[in-house]
Amino acid sequence: MEGLELRRLERGDFDKGFLQLMQQLTVVGDVSREMFDAKMQQLEKLGDYHRIVVIEDVKSGRVVATGSIFIEHKFARSCGKVGHLEDVVVDERMRGCHLGQRYLYFALSIFAQQSQRRVIEALTSFAKDAGCYKVILDCKPENAAFYEKCGYSKKEIQMAKYF
Amino acid sequence: MEGLELRRLERGDFDKGFLQLMQQLTVVGDVSREMFDAKMQQLEKLGDYHRIVVIEDVKSGRVVATGSIFIEHKFARSCGKVGHLEDVVVDERMRGCHLGQRYLYFALSIFAQQSQRRVIEALTSFAKDAGCYKVILDCKPENAAFYEKCGYSKKEIQMAKYF
Repeated sequence: MEGLELRRLERGDFDKGFLQLMQQLTVVGDVSREMFDAKMQQLEKLGDYHRIVVIEDVKSGRVVATGSIFIEHKFARSCGKVGHLEDVVVDERMRGCHLGQRYLYFALSIFAQQSQRRVIEALTSFAKDAGCYKVILDCKPENAAFYEKCGYSKKEIQMAKYF
Repeated sequence: MEGLELRRLERGDFDKGFLQLMQQLTVVGDVSREMFDAKMQQLEKLGDYHRIVVIEDVKSGRVVATGSIFIEHKFARSCGKVGHLEDVVVDERMRGCHLGQRYLYFALSIFAQQSQRRVIEALTSFAKDAGCYKVILDCKPENAAFYEKCGYSKKEIQMAKYF
């Protein structure tokens, strides 16, 4: 995938559209540069227990995909570890939304799928190398087929309580 | 709930049946005292980002319930935090398994439900006080009704990849 660089999230990504990309996934709200830097500092303290990767389109200097993983310490499985995959998103422009031309739509869609898969595989490999015995994630039912292609299987149900 | 003390997991719980309790939930495998202490040391380094609570039956000196929560840093929701509830289990003897007397079964079962609820509520409150905007968990479909009583709602599906 020429021109697309996968790497860890950096402070400079504040100016490269990282938060705008996250907004396509969830509610981000107001995040100033100071808040961003403070969160980066907190994440740096966690070292390899929390890793966020991005794919940068080198030509445009924009972040076009991201995903994160954090590692949980367990007593299960001989004091093993579990990777939690979170916040995987690919820029909607790569996903081909709002484009009238069908051919262009599909070309971009495959490109987006490749980027998404690259993020998922990079984070899954990271967790495996860190000694995790499994990686888990929560997703919408319509995205399950995609994760199955990446080697994931359906397990339980997710529940949430909002404050 | 007289005689039942809810508190954080301690190193001494190695001798109070904590791992045997965890075995009722999942595969624990061989965990020596040294491994247990090393894991406790790792968890202590994470401070308030990872909390494991237990309920001890003071009379018998045994751990009869446990649950854990860890806090994930997000950029979403104005650099918010999310609590992940994990590994909630109540001793099967409290759950009333393998007991022939129906009356006793129900009496213990209510007792077990109260303990489970106490663990879930303590960890959920902890996450709220720590500034989390939500708590999430994964569970078997048959346990969803219980979590709904604790204020949780069904959201997405969980997927996993084992190594």
